[in-house]
Amino acid sequence: MFDPVEKLKEFIRHRSVSTDSKQRDGMKGAQEFVSGLLASLGFAVEVVPTDLHPIILARRDGDKSWPHVIIYGHYDVQPADPLELWKTPAFEPTIVGNRIYGRGAADNKGPLLTNIAAVAKLLEEDPKLPLRITFLVEGEEEMGSPSFPKFLDRYADRLREADFVYLSDTALPNENQVVLTCGLRGLTLFDVHLTGAKGDLHSGLHGGVLRNPIQALAEILATLHTPDGRVNVPGFYDDVLEVHPWERDELRKLGANEKEYADFLGIDTFYTTPGFSPFEAVRFQPTLEFNGIGGGYQGEGTKTVIPSKAFAKLSCRLVPNQRPDKIKKLVMDAIRARTPSGVKVSFVDQHKGDPYVVVPPDRSNTPRDQSPVLARAFRAADKAIGEIWGRPPVYLREGGSVPIIAEIKRVTGLDSVMFGLFLPEDNLHAPNESFNLDVMKKGIETTRRILSAVARG
Amino acid sequence: MFDPVEKLKEFIRHRSVSTDSKQRDGMKGAQEFVSGLLASLGFAVEVVPTDLHPIILARRDGDKSWPHVIIYGHYDVQPADPLELWKTPAFEPTIVGNRIYGRGAADNKGPLLTNIAAVAKLLEEDPKLPLRITFLVEGEEEMGSPSFPKFLDRYADRLREADFVYLSDTALPNENQVVLTCGLRGLTLFDVHLTGAKGDLHSGLHGGVLRNPIQALAEILATLHTPDGRVNVPGFYDDVLEVHPWERDELRKLGANEKEYADFLGIDTFYTTPGFSPFEAVRFQPTLEFNGIGGGYQGEGTKTVIPSKAFAKLSCRLVPNQRPDKIKKLVMDAIRARTPSGVKVSFVDQHKGDPYVVVPPDRSNTPRDQSPVLARAFRAADKAIGEIWGRPPVYLREGGSVPIIAEIKRVTGLDSVMFGLFLPEDNLHAPNESFNLDVMKKGIETTRRILSAVARG
Repeated sequence: MFDPVEKLKEFIRHRSVSTDSKQRDGMKGAQEFVSGLLASLGFAVEVVPTDLHPIILARRDGDKSWPHVIIYGHYDVQPADPLELWKTPAFEPTIVGNRIYGRGAADNKGPLLTNIAAVAKLLEEDPKLPLRITFLVEGEEEMGSPSFPKFLDRYADRLREADFVYLSDTALPNENQVVLTCGLRGLTLFDVHLTGAKGDLHSGLHGGVLRNPIQALAEILATLHTPDGRVNVPGFYDDVLEVHPWERDELRKLGANEKEYADFLGIDTFYTTPGFSPFEAVRFQPTLEFNGIGGGYQGEGTKTVIPSKAFAKLSCRLVPNQRPDKIKKLVMDAIRARTPSGVKVSFVDQHKGDPYVVVPPDRSNTPRDQSPVLARAFRAADKAIGEIWGRPPVYLREGGSVPIIAEIKRVTGLDSVMFGLFLPEDNLHAPNESFNLDVMKKGIETTRRILSAVARG
Repeated sequence: MFDPVEKLKEFIRHRSVSTDSKQRDGMKGAQEFVSGLLASLGFAVEVVPTDLHPIILARRDGDKSWPHVIIYGHYDVQPADPLELWKTPAFEPTIVGNRIYGRGAADNKGPLLTNIAAVAKLLEEDPKLPLRITFLVEGEEEMGSPSFPKFLDRYADRLREADFVYLSDTALPNENQVVLTCGLRGLTLFDVHLTGAKGDLHSGLHGGVLRNPIQALAEILATLHTPDGRVNVPGFYDDVLEVHPWERDELRKLGANEKEYADFLGIDTFYTTPGFSPFEAVRFQPTLEFNGIGGGYQGEGTKTVIPSKAFAKLSCRLVPNQRPDKIKKLVMDAIRARTPSGVKVSFVDQHKGDPYVVVPPDRSNTPRDQSPVLARAFRAADKAIGEIWGRPPVYLREGGSVPIIAEIKRVTGLDSVMFGLFLPEDNLHAPNESFNLDVMKKGIETTRRILSAVARG
């Protein structure tokens, strides 16, 4: 059995920034690292080429009667910049106390390796374990998984043979409380561009005569929320799933503290849709967010121009059962209808993803046709987590998005068990990302017991 | 007598970008070029040091009974970028047809050289001309003349001896119609910064919980105008001077065509305050304009952040008798009052300038105590322009700002005769700036006749 921490160091050293075409070697290195590791465990590894970064499909086949789990992960990471804010080199794993620092340590190299290590241990203990396992590890998650749908279509029949998907790419609220994620927000992203005059104009010679695209943009964006913070687009909330009482009960078990959360964010007041606490809003409510805005002169000092262009980058986080294409159309239509004369509006479409929800067994809204192996996995997870972490998991929808989970469900019908392993202080997508090694250790044992219980029924 | 076109080429070659600290040589070269030229005409040249770029003060003294004109100009130019949009090198003067291309050709090197050439010709014809002349040529106009107030304070007593100021740093509407500019808009500029959370946040994990500074900024900016385009800040219009009927009559003489103006700007509809045509609005109405905006992710693709910060660059163009400090306070107070909870607002002050107005002789609102030499200059200009350009000038306030004109008036009491020489198609502050050499030729003769008439009474 390999040393998971040493292997994680090796994994982090590969600069697998999927969006950075200069890091092809890092991407290849990370892919070969995962493929090699799984092959060394006896998996039949297939490296499936895509238009960009290949997908690793590694199978441990077995009798058709054995349960079959797909373990998902990704070997790509976010860009590391701004590099000057890192206290240790982003791609040189550094252990300080019980944490390992480095880009991708938590998202997703540490958690993926946790699950690989659990499988390694399990197979070492019982080489004849009656469990079929397929690792599915992609390299474009941080880019929105553009190649995944085509892959899914091609491999749907094979994937459909499995019983459920297992992954660790979600969060724990704190070190003592595991969350089994039962829902993810979807998203739809696009840019809005406004154009006024044919070029930038002198604001003295021409100011007061024409519509300034920055002003028009501000006025349009300002219409997109009501003063109380709801999205002000007709139809936006039509398909929002009601929150079941058990979901609010689970959330209460977290005992999350608003003051602590506000301090963590560095804000003095929350701003949520009416009737929802911040912890509810982020899980149960959709958003329309402005991720970026730009136009005119942004340098030091002044430049007295009326700019020709302005733009904003918009994203909506969606909850079940909102559909990205429908929401995008509603928002674009609203923006078009609210664009004043004197400026022209256009859009640049970005990526999207469906929201996802899975209901654990024995809830008021559990589907009658839920897979028995899925139910068994949930019950095994509940038991193992209670034993290892000292308290049972809570079952919560989360605010983040893992669009491929909904995509897998849509194409193959498979649900996912999401065993979160990263903490709020892990600094995902930010400088000084790290992963807690105690969490890793407990995670390995937890996954080992869950898969063992799934195998043995 | 020197060749004005050759001299202009030489002048343009000096890269006198006042805001660019890498162009010190260009600034020094331009300053020495002007100083040397004026010295060669017999002027007593004083190069007055400032905190940044020196001011040239060049005197032709004479009998106290002689009229005294201050001729203003500036030797600095705007930055030339984006360089890739220039069809000829920005600092390599290039003549195409009757135009000379190069940064500063029109603003202000061509017009300044026009007036120097006129003086040279005049003194060549009549070395004993009974006219005192002071050239006042600064090097920080394109930065908002930061050193000018201190200079004015120190030299006020000497400048006060003059009768009026003469300059060519304003526009003609077209090649056939001279405008004597009787008013300039003032301005006040500042940046608004909003800060929300202590860092950029993941829009999935935290979206729906807190105020997004881009949203708050858009909502604040959207309150600053009414739907009909007036500035929505209490007290903003309180000090706006009424428009006299003769001003609207003069404007009508221009015969300006709205369709042509819209085509020039590349817009299909105007957006002016109610009751004002575009030609009136730009001259008689103040503005609140957004010159730039920025925040969050502005690159290609997407980054799903809730940014910590957003900012906008604001400027107000002011008309008589609005005061920059008062207006700035009104707008800042409105922004502060409209900043919602969850974000913090701060301001960065930029430069400012008073608006200016001078009434030509024989108008209903001409001041009773108008200087007789100033009145003589206006009448001489009217006559010379009528003879040389084929039709008399129109007397108009303009939308642009030359803040030092108001500053000179405030400190010394002197009014200005502004003989505009650049055309809309000259591309001021933009790539491919050029100056019309026919306008230059007629300008030299016009200034010659005006100064001659002022001298001889």
